[in-house]
Amino acid sequence: MTLTDRILMGPGPCNPYPEAVAALGRPMLGHLDPEFIALLDETSDRLRTVFETSNALTFPVSATGSAGMEAAIVNFVGPGDTVVVGVNGVFGGRMVDVAQRTGAEAIAVEHEWGQPVDIQRMLDAHPAPAMYAMVHAETSTGVRSDVAAMGANKGDSLLLADCVTSLGGVELRVDDWNVDIAYSGTQKCLGVAPGLAPLTVSDRAIERLIPVPQSWYLDLNMIAKYVTGGGARAYHHTAPISMIMSLHAGLGALLDEGLDAARARHQAAGDAVKAGMSDLGFELFAAEGSRLAPLSSITIPDGRLGSVGEAEVRSRLLQEYGIEIGGGLGPVAGKVWRIGTMGHTARQRNVTTLLAALADILG
Amino acid sequence: MTLTDRILMGPGPCNPYPEAVAALGRPMLGHLDPEFIALLDETSDRLRTVFETSNALTFPVSATGSAGMEAAIVNFVGPGDTVVVGVNGVFGGRMVDVAQRTGAEAIAVEHEWGQPVDIQRMLDAHPAPAMYAMVHAETSTGVRSDVAAMGANKGDSLLLADCVTSLGGVELRVDDWNVDIAYSGTQKCLGVAPGLAPLTVSDRAIERLIPVPQSWYLDLNMIAKYVTGGGARAYHHTAPISMIMSLHAGLGALLDEGLDAARARHQAAGDAVKAGMSDLGFELFAAEGSRLAPLSSITIPDGRLGSVGEAEVRSRLLQEYGIEIGGGLGPVAGKVWRIGTMGHTARQRNVTTLLAALADILG
Repeated sequence: MTLTDRILMGPGPCNPYPEAVAALGRPMLGHLDPEFIALLDETSDRLRTVFETSNALTFPVSATGSAGMEAAIVNFVGPGDTVVVGVNGVFGGRMVDVAQRTGAEAIAVEHEWGQPVDIQRMLDAHPAPAMYAMVHAETSTGVRSDVAAMGANKGDSLLLADCVTSLGGVELRVDDWNVDIAYSGTQKCLGVAPGLAPLTVSDRAIERLIPVPQSWYLDLNMIAKYVTGGGARAYHHTAPISMIMSLHAGLGALLDEGLDAARARHQAAGDAVKAGMSDLGFELFAAEGSRLAPLSSITIPDGRLGSVGEAEVRSRLLQEYGIEIGGGLGPVAGKVWRIGTMGHTARQRNVTTLLAALADILG
Repeated sequence: MTLTDRILMGPGPCNPYPEAVAALGRPMLGHLDPEFIALLDETSDRLRTVFETSNALTFPVSATGSAGMEAAIVNFVGPGDTVVVGVNGVFGGRMVDVAQRTGAEAIAVEHEWGQPVDIQRMLDAHPAPAMYAMVHAETSTGVRSDVAAMGANKGDSLLLADCVTSLGGVELRVDDWNVDIAYSGTQKCLGVAPGLAPLTVSDRAIERLIPVPQSWYLDLNMIAKYVTGGGARAYHHTAPISMIMSLHAGLGALLDEGLDAARARHQAAGDAVKAGMSDLGFELFAAEGSRLAPLSSITIPDGRLGSVGEAEVRSRLLQEYGIEIGGGLGPVAGKVWRIGTMGHTARQRNVTTLLAALADILG
């Protein structure tokens, strides 16, 4: 089966760093091998650096980003608990669904799509819920919300932040912002294949762990004995070795560049997309002041594409140029494009290529 | 960080097939890219061949084998349901734990470790539970149990079989044996890195799916719309693209060899381990007639290793020879070795190397 070499400028996965790809092929190790334990520990250290946290319980969950969301919820809330969720796109809505499946009461604070989460409305929804949950970087709308403001005003509640499309590409300071639980995915600004969900949990949140959560696979009480077990690691499940080797290498590439430099590169690439699309006559979907650098959301005006149609433009980009961009999800399907500049993809060369290809197609 | 090139003869992961390793580095694709959808569909077809099933809902769950177990349970049972579980090792015990977390009543039919599941005792435990669950190949004891006999006598109940250490290496006929739900892991006899859990679900079981199971990530109602959606694939979560490419290639290697030939190779390598260890003076742990080919369990007699100690022998194998074998889990820790000959590792050369190294160490 022949596979095309795409430029991945959708909402993720991105093109992974060459170092991350190479590490996938490293010799396999057992999950209790001292060499693998050392590599896992160093991977967790690198995650602490990109999360800007000293949380001991920081590690990659053995599944994709949505499993990170589930781990971040089912270990902390259940029947009798209230969770206030900021919903300004698909992923806030998903948090409501996951929370409700635990038996908790989820209060959805609904926002217009394209707008950031309104912190005052979150606080007004409930004065002291078990958890406030919000999406730092909404992948469905390209909006960045103010997690720091939520953290400064959350009181004794836990604060959960979805950082899937921000970690490694956007300012994110878990400790300084009083975030208790944050998760991400590897296939966005970390520049690694999809398959792992980096997670960090504050000591304060660890004290509130549910002793026997509904999920065995995501039970942080048990997993902590493997990932932070010091000399004696208790087997829980077989870690996805190759993916962790790749994450280790991807984080190495990112940190060799420098976290600030990598964030600046994501900002520059996102700015170039937004400027270029404006030059092509498009408007930006996300509210001004809350636009996410690594994921630019573009409004598709009625009639602008004539008889071509937005799906056909995306299809031609893919088939003729090998470039993937994303369509809209849910209520903005057909109305929004999502252009990602994440990880290894976040480079001017790719932006220039995309803009030139789009100009050709649009005529 | 330098990593050693191990021969992996523990209970998994094995050494992956070279074809599976190479495919990890294939160009990344988006999870909705038509090329990736075609590759996923072909992967599912290959899984049907190794499971010996025509089940439409057959695909790799986006996490490791234990998540396959969780998916296989939480989608089918909950409060008010009874599950009869054959427990003859760690993984039967894990099924009890996972089932109890759904609120179901789990009846554990306990067996002596090293013995196969007694089907009559399963039937005697409850005449018509929602589910009978058993482990085809117990990774903690090296025992194979008679899933076919359970399937022939299960009545209207669902039958769940853990096939983590059997799929691809041992006779397994999902359709002929009336298995309703079976899952596996990629890092055993399939010869691929850990990270995915192949799962197959009968049409009969699909009719009994819980509409909103407690896990969002493992919700088969939603996942089915992506993996079996025909032309219109509904996004659920971002698939672990590189791992699925690797599974596709590993299954290709296995099926190019031929399923029967691969099983025969696993049998021959396991026979060679058992014969060689007997020649070295060890006894086999698993009950005669129920010994699993790809995983040989060896009894460590008191005093046989003198002052060396079993852990030191394993450590010397790892450090001096780069060979990993497995220790015992739970009640047989320190009393049993587990020697795997799975996937690409299942070759005479590796068995010969291990036996010679052990002979050197034991003197």
